[in-house]
Amino acid sequence: MRISELSRRSGVPVATIKYYLREELLPAGVATSATQAEYDEHHLRRLRLARALVTVRGLSVSTTREVLRGLDEHSTDIHFLLGLAVGAVPTGEPEPSVDGPQEPSPADELISAMGWEISDKAPTRAVVTDTLGTLRELGLPADWQALVPYAELAERTAALDLDKLEDVPDPLERVERAVLLTILMEPVLLALRRMAQENESAKRYGLPA
Amino acid sequence: MRISELSRRSGVPVATIKYYLREELLPAGVATSATQAEYDEHHLRRLRLARALVTVRGLSVSTTREVLRGLDEHSTDIHFLLGLAVGAVPTGEPEPSVDGPQEPSPADELISAMGWEISDKAPTRAVVTDTLGTLRELGLPADWQALVPYAELAERTAALDLDKLEDVPDPLERVERAVLLTILMEPVLLALRRMAQENESAKRYGLPA
Repeated sequence: MRISELSRRSGVPVATIKYYLREELLPAGVATSATQAEYDEHHLRRLRLARALVTVRGLSVSTTREVLRGLDEHSTDIHFLLGLAVGAVPTGEPEPSVDGPQEPSPADELISAMGWEISDKAPTRAVVTDTLGTLRELGLPADWQALVPYAELAERTAALDLDKLEDVPDPLERVERAVLLTILMEPVLLALRRMAQENESAKRYGLPA
Repeated sequence: MRISELSRRSGVPVATIKYYLREELLPAGVATSATQAEYDEHHLRRLRLARALVTVRGLSVSTTREVLRGLDEHSTDIHFLLGLAVGAVPTGEPEPSVDGPQEPSPADELISAMGWEISDKAPTRAVVTDTLGTLRELGLPADWQALVPYAELAERTAALDLDKLEDVPDPLERVERAVLLTILMEPVLLALRRMAQENESAKRYGLPA
């Protein structure tokens, strides 16, 4: 297909596609003349994924390029691909500080109690440890043990999440779906929690209608 | 106590306390001289709550004033207070558009299927409906039925959340804790989900170590 059809089918403007081509997020098409090239279904899937990583996942172009290269090199290792897509990503949280031998952090304790297999570099570790620290500074009871029931519910949520990928055979498409579902579902999960809190509060403390 | 001790005990700078006094987030202390006033434990709790609403919850000063006024007027209605603290709050999401009689939205369908009691004006409704729309635009299967298992897990999360408030008798303190736990726990819950996804992915697709 021509670039115009690629644009129409992906919903990505031609100018953006040209930018992605220059930045090597998308491989060049097969040149059919000095000014035209032909693209195929692989380009379409890759373009949608690149677009999702940049706009939905909020990655920089250079990190997106890195993730997409990883995809090319490890396209049979689904676990690695999913890790790249949802984990190998700066969350804006600070790195845990490392000075000399360390006590296990609250996140380490929780992960070990859950028997989870989590990368040492996962930025999620710092999120857990730092937030518990903030809660404690504010005078609230907050230890990792209190997170165990939440972690158990997270396990069941994650199983639901991964079930949604089982029927997607193509690795690029599977990763695209993992990114979209992981990221886009985040506000929904938080909204469901707030709704459920409102409902639980009505049940416990509500005045009769 | 003097304003300096109020500052020390709350961790809120004196300049900020003076600003909150001017903005009526905090009631005036009892004047002990032309330039000094005396504050009590009630001021301390209210200051901590105001601070949490502004810095943690990200409310504007005027919305915070509104929430705190609501607290003063409804201090025995815990459900109303919790609603103010966690619900009556713009989330930056657009209001659902209202033009004439409407089909029930996906959020309405979900809420009704769950038997939840949720305010018609809850901004969480639009979050759910809009995100499902975005997922569908991206070509992913996304209907409200797919959210039911997530909603069931959210119910259990919310029950854990409200359990943590049961032992707090003072209404101001209970609302403060509700705000802090609801908001501050959000990144932790998302981090737990990512960790659990990583672990589930390792279990399903991981290469043997």
